[in-house]
Amino acid sequence: MAKRELVLGLAGLGTVGSGLARILHDRAAAIEARTGRAVRIKTILVRDPAKPRPVEIPGASIVTDASALIDDPEIDVVVELIGGTTAAYDLVHAALSAGKHVVTANKALLAERGVPLFRLAGEKGLHLAHEASVAGGIPIIETLKESLAANRIEKIMGILNGTANYILTRMTEAGLGFDAALAEAQARGYAEADPTLDVEGGDTAHKLVLLIRLAFGRSYPMARLPVWGVSQVSPMDIAHAAEFGYTIKLIAQAREVGGKIEAGVYPALIPAHYLLASVNGSFNAVRIEGDAVGQVMLYGRGAGDMPTGSAVAADVMAIARGRAANNTGFVTQDLPEADILDLDEAVSCHYLRFLVPDRTGVLRDLSGVMADHGISLEQVVQKKWDGPGVQLVFFTHECPAGAVHAAMRAIEAQRDLTLAPIMHYRIL
Amino acid sequence: MAKRELVLGLAGLGTVGSGLARILHDRAAAIEARTGRAVRIKTILVRDPAKPRPVEIPGASIVTDASALIDDPEIDVVVELIGGTTAAYDLVHAALSAGKHVVTANKALLAERGVPLFRLAGEKGLHLAHEASVAGGIPIIETLKESLAANRIEKIMGILNGTANYILTRMTEAGLGFDAALAEAQARGYAEADPTLDVEGGDTAHKLVLLIRLAFGRSYPMARLPVWGVSQVSPMDIAHAAEFGYTIKLIAQAREVGGKIEAGVYPALIPAHYLLASVNGSFNAVRIEGDAVGQVMLYGRGAGDMPTGSAVAADVMAIARGRAANNTGFVTQDLPEADILDLDEAVSCHYLRFLVPDRTGVLRDLSGVMADHGISLEQVVQKKWDGPGVQLVFFTHECPAGAVHAAMRAIEAQRDLTLAPIMHYRIL
Repeated sequence: MAKRELVLGLAGLGTVGSGLARILHDRAAAIEARTGRAVRIKTILVRDPAKPRPVEIPGASIVTDASALIDDPEIDVVVELIGGTTAAYDLVHAALSAGKHVVTANKALLAERGVPLFRLAGEKGLHLAHEASVAGGIPIIETLKESLAANRIEKIMGILNGTANYILTRMTEAGLGFDAALAEAQARGYAEADPTLDVEGGDTAHKLVLLIRLAFGRSYPMARLPVWGVSQVSPMDIAHAAEFGYTIKLIAQAREVGGKIEAGVYPALIPAHYLLASVNGSFNAVRIEGDAVGQVMLYGRGAGDMPTGSAVAADVMAIARGRAANNTGFVTQDLPEADILDLDEAVSCHYLRFLVPDRTGVLRDLSGVMADHGISLEQVVQKKWDGPGVQLVFFTHECPAGAVHAAMRAIEAQRDLTLAPIMHYRIL
Repeated sequence: MAKRELVLGLAGLGTVGSGLARILHDRAAAIEARTGRAVRIKTILVRDPAKPRPVEIPGASIVTDASALIDDPEIDVVVELIGGTTAAYDLVHAALSAGKHVVTANKALLAERGVPLFRLAGEKGLHLAHEASVAGGIPIIETLKESLAANRIEKIMGILNGTANYILTRMTEAGLGFDAALAEAQARGYAEADPTLDVEGGDTAHKLVLLIRLAFGRSYPMARLPVWGVSQVSPMDIAHAAEFGYTIKLIAQAREVGGKIEAGVYPALIPAHYLLASVNGSFNAVRIEGDAVGQVMLYGRGAGDMPTGSAVAADVMAIARGRAANNTGFVTQDLPEADILDLDEAVSCHYLRFLVPDRTGVLRDLSGVMADHGISLEQVVQKKWDGPGVQLVFFTHECPAGAVHAAMRAIEAQRDLTLAPIMHYRIL
């Protein structure tokens, strides 16, 4: 029988830490009714004890040295919310080594340095729980490793960054340019002063690596994941896409193709009738296709103190209940590395926009290059616009991305065939 | 250490049983990789052994007597897929009494006679797992009892019956009447020859009672749940609703109001911009509002051999992994009965459509009755139509349903004020 009280050491009292503390306080009776145990934060590790905090945690001692957590035999669980991949790695490693369960929201840590940590947790039979690391309050980790565990997962498509989605939503709804939409997101607190990790896809990439691990049982090296952000998306492409029934979203995409994993993070056109296309503002969603379950979608808030705190609290409660650890969703915690499908071999439809000179034969020349590369066109639009030249948009039939890349290089190599860089998106 | 093989006794080899058998066969290696144990169907209980089956289960013996499952010490788990509330009750009770875990998809059984079964499972420390009983492959049970366990659930709104949703979708998209849409659903295999349980809300009601138990920790007696179906919905109300930005869906709704549970199953107007309003065809979805997580929505296939089989298989795999049983989501398996808010006290906006005689003063008389009952009108539309009289539609501000019911009675009691029964929907 487990002892009655579950004792936490909390590392980090920022946004999520404060949210967790509030939930554990406000819901104390309900948590005990659901788990049979009281949950108490005993010790809180912070960098600056003098910093004012939005929450009071009566009875908890504030410390600045991690050993106060690691060396305390009374602490059952270390909740790691300090972020980063260095001090957090050391803390999680030390906590597991000391026989403590770990709950973390740190996607960068698990995506970049997760392999030895999962191995260590597996050897020790400890939880390395991380529901909060992907899509905040949305139960995507639990769903992949428990509820859909009997499925061969065929495809994942996720909107995993609320900042990027807010920006694209405002560009779509209000016709804003990227810079104006970013400024608005910053003014509303949806984007940080340095928004790089959010808008350039890095944050989404971390999350996708974690989802690939759970869905396909493969370790996918971050460095090999193709990642593009939304800073190059133009309102003109959003408008063209809309005209043909598509919405542009920053998509984290992964699928299994003949035993290989095809994955990437990039803005893509998705059909406007997909529920995923209606996921707007700072919300997140993940669409999963399983061989048995078919299509499933989970939707909710991907960030914020309380939604992410809700996910951390769920992990803590699973430990309180004495659930068997199931960190990777597989018996082995040491998953094989993914056999990666080169993006050039990935097959899909494509959207291409060219700014071409207004002269006879341009369409013939461009479509000739496409045909030479085996690319068949499904829809073509030629449009006048205010600037010089003519806007020409191709929607292709399915073809490998490599053929499109080669055609783009061939077109850009020809003098006077394009007046600006070619805009290119996959259609998913 | 658990023994290596998990042995199942399967009761019922219909749609879901066949789906489960196919999944356990096709995914055998993956299931072992994820749980560490092989899962084998040893014995299958059927009514008619001569009936042809869509699947072959090599090595399994077909029996017609439940004692072959109950009395076999090798069987760890009884999977109950026979349906109904009599033989299924006896089987589940006997299996638990014999110390076997139970996995079931039987919403009627658990909604109507679940209380003693949950109590027995709790006493014995056994699983009475039932992910498949609500919304097929959508992991709503797991989400409520595990992932959102730290939340105070404020509200649930679900589309839980694919047949009713298909019918309403076709009425909305194609302007069909109920009878034509039902005939189409039957022709496509989405509705049974006797569609009563699906279209009149009974199936949805069973599911809602189970969700109330998990979300609010309260046992809600089926007999006290207000239930309406979709057979009285008219294309005219769907069109009026659409004009004002609403979609009509058969909604399972529950929320906590001052410690009481307000719940019901009925067609209602929901804002067209809700993601729930875009859940079309035979798909299901559940929208949950939690105090910490905010809004979460889960979407997917609510029925069918493989989606429901996927949920049954997930429960079986949780048992194989040795997860602690968590059947009700609470330590006590004997939940208190819900304190029920009378529907007349439930506050919301309302939609009312009257067919009135085309004479001076009718609008004054009708709106006078509304005012007398303290009901304030937000929008009013008066429309000519092909038939006799005039169509008059009221959208009210928030008020208790009791006031609306009283006003309707007062109006219908007045001679010559209405030419047809008043159509009334809540707006959620």
